[in-house]
Amino acid sequence: MKAQILTIGDEILIGQIVDTNSAWMGQQLNLQGIQVDKIISLSDSQEAITKGIDQAFAEADIILMTGGLGPTKDDITKKTIADYFGVDMYFDESTFNRIQRLFKKLGREPLEAHRLQSYMPTNADILMNKMGTAPGMWFEKDGKILVSMPGVPYEMKYLMSEEVLPRLKKQFPGKPIAHRTILTTGEGESRLAAKIDSFVEALPSNIKMAYLPGIAQVRLRLTGTGDDEIALNDLLDKKVEELKPQISEFIYGYENEKLEEVLGKILKEKGKTLCTAESCTGGYIAHKITSISGASAYFMGGIVAYDNAVKMNQLQVQSSTLEKHGAVSEETVIEMVKGVIKLLKTDLAVAISGIAGPTGGTPEKPVGTIWIAVGDKNNIKSYKLNLWKDRMKNIEYSTTVALNVIRKFLLEL
Amino acid sequence: MKAQILTIGDEILIGQIVDTNSAWMGQQLNLQGIQVDKIISLSDSQEAITKGIDQAFAEADIILMTGGLGPTKDDITKKTIADYFGVDMYFDESTFNRIQRLFKKLGREPLEAHRLQSYMPTNADILMNKMGTAPGMWFEKDGKILVSMPGVPYEMKYLMSEEVLPRLKKQFPGKPIAHRTILTTGEGESRLAAKIDSFVEALPSNIKMAYLPGIAQVRLRLTGTGDDEIALNDLLDKKVEELKPQISEFIYGYENEKLEEVLGKILKEKGKTLCTAESCTGGYIAHKITSISGASAYFMGGIVAYDNAVKMNQLQVQSSTLEKHGAVSEETVIEMVKGVIKLLKTDLAVAISGIAGPTGGTPEKPVGTIWIAVGDKNNIKSYKLNLWKDRMKNIEYSTTVALNVIRKFLLEL
Repeated sequence: MKAQILTIGDEILIGQIVDTNSAWMGQQLNLQGIQVDKIISLSDSQEAITKGIDQAFAEADIILMTGGLGPTKDDITKKTIADYFGVDMYFDESTFNRIQRLFKKLGREPLEAHRLQSYMPTNADILMNKMGTAPGMWFEKDGKILVSMPGVPYEMKYLMSEEVLPRLKKQFPGKPIAHRTILTTGEGESRLAAKIDSFVEALPSNIKMAYLPGIAQVRLRLTGTGDDEIALNDLLDKKVEELKPQISEFIYGYENEKLEEVLGKILKEKGKTLCTAESCTGGYIAHKITSISGASAYFMGGIVAYDNAVKMNQLQVQSSTLEKHGAVSEETVIEMVKGVIKLLKTDLAVAISGIAGPTGGTPEKPVGTIWIAVGDKNNIKSYKLNLWKDRMKNIEYSTTVALNVIRKFLLEL
Repeated sequence: MKAQILTIGDEILIGQIVDTNSAWMGQQLNLQGIQVDKIISLSDSQEAITKGIDQAFAEADIILMTGGLGPTKDDITKKTIADYFGVDMYFDESTFNRIQRLFKKLGREPLEAHRLQSYMPTNADILMNKMGTAPGMWFEKDGKILVSMPGVPYEMKYLMSEEVLPRLKKQFPGKPIAHRTILTTGEGESRLAAKIDSFVEALPSNIKMAYLPGIAQVRLRLTGTGDDEIALNDLLDKKVEELKPQISEFIYGYENEKLEEVLGKILKEKGKTLCTAESCTGGYIAHKITSISGASAYFMGGIVAYDNAVKMNQLQVQSSTLEKHGAVSEETVIEMVKGVIKLLKTDLAVAISGIAGPTGGTPEKPVGTIWIAVGDKNNIKSYKLNLWKDRMKNIEYSTTVALNVIRKFLLEL
């Protein structure tokens, strides 16, 4: 069962908006065992839409379209579909009544443009849209399906959840499909692949492995198909268990977890508190930690010690340390950890100092040299990174490493 | 001149990642007068990619592909393109040398998979990728162009900016097109539009206005076309000058400037130093300020006072203030400004405290209630925001407001 998603709108093609609808629809269809084999974004033009439908019907069984159903002049999807099927439009009283009620609730009068929205192709099965004025439409042709929905994300999601997905499930019960995602950090894509090469080679033909790299992270995704949903899920679980010991030191979580979320959970479980002392990341580590709701249970606060005066006055880094070893040194980040734990009275702290770039490097300490220390009052560990010339990439990468070394430190407590 | 964008990867089709590359590429091409008439996301399959290239070449002059160039087995784009053109692959020494140097810097050895990344189709013009291991590739066929780039956004952006866009400009000079972007904050899209309605109505037919809304920001873009580049640029400059006085209080910059960059320039010009005291934004304001290279000239550091103990002990917020008014109050943020200026010895400070959500609200202070104060030792101004239930949106929005109120405070000094 193959599906294609067609998103209509010039605003997508000129990059004015990012098409987030397709990803959501892809997820939902996939969970239901319907494979999306193409996503196409098209212009608001009758010619482009007609050709797009033709090509999609030639390649897939289900076409899901979004966009171009609004009341303005550039929204032409509905008329184009009617012409494509060679049918007329009729005035749909029940749609217009619903629009009138919606406007009455808002204390407004519908415009002529909204009356025109009530004209429907005669072959459309109308999908009631409780979230907006434009209904969805369901068409069938030679056993294939075309669905047209508004592009407004919450309207589309409502129609998908309430109408489209249940109808598709009924019409195409389909073959079960399931996924497992393993989240790793600390090892690059190629090295990770080399480590699990024989595991991947030995996977049964109904299970595929994909590597999804990010900054300082690689997600591994196993996708399986099968006839028996329970057996398939058991097999995937078994494969994950087989995989785990081969790369256990790099795995930080599963599915949609975030590293900062996993870190928060461990801090809560262990009843430990944390603070930060940041130079080159300038608050980004603290931001990541506090982006998780409930972080106040374990995160006390942090010092952004951008200037050396702050390192000395607030964090008690010795001026002799800065003179002898420099602000970007193992000695400095170790003193930062000690100083910030004393100052903010937490169990643990992480400290970071480096040259984020693109300027400021020296031959001994080129741009991208970053020191991280993590510890408690008994024990401090330090790490040196040699990264790139790109400031944002260095900040992002070193923050991920910092979060991960705190996680690892906690696990050894 | 028509272009199509092909993004390759099963992770897009199953909705595991949102394709943000296409929107960025669409914007950049559009700015250069190249129209994107279709964006297509395809599976990691030789058949799908081959067919996708065929269809795109039939419809467009330029194909820009991203994805499928990594070192792992599911990345098959390069081999598919070579087969499509019927050419062999050769081992490109210079690419392998670059990869080796990259790994040497990281203190690691390249793997066999990286050696394989150095095989290139014989008809490829290699685009050096300073941001990663996989080079971009430029192909020409019957006057049409195919470009293949990695899917990692910063690698793609680097290759587009440094290689692809300049080459396209050279090859397809086209009719002069020019843009002016005016950056605003502090007023919503509809109200802004109402204020400049008559200006927009009176624009000549060769100049179009677009509203590009973001979080707490609206960019206004004027796009003009004409036969004479100099006259066109003069006309656009004149229009910008006409527009300015109508919305001057909301304009913070032009073109690609960032608010934090504009703020940094003003701080430098005025010779003032800044620090931050953040509760609900958890370091995000400091992060934004320090994301600008050279921020150390005016930014001393900041305190992330997440816990009330940090507000009291480091920032000298009175316990009576916290008891009487709460941590989210005008009184608290004013004391935070005073405290952090004293502590970090800067000319100016900004402080923020609020309920970022999604939980933690009360009837008097619902989620989204955020107080901001900005000032120096003579004068402090405070602002109250009533935002949403969405944590990240609240953090992002209030950070933008905070940066802007510092900017405005500075301009009045």
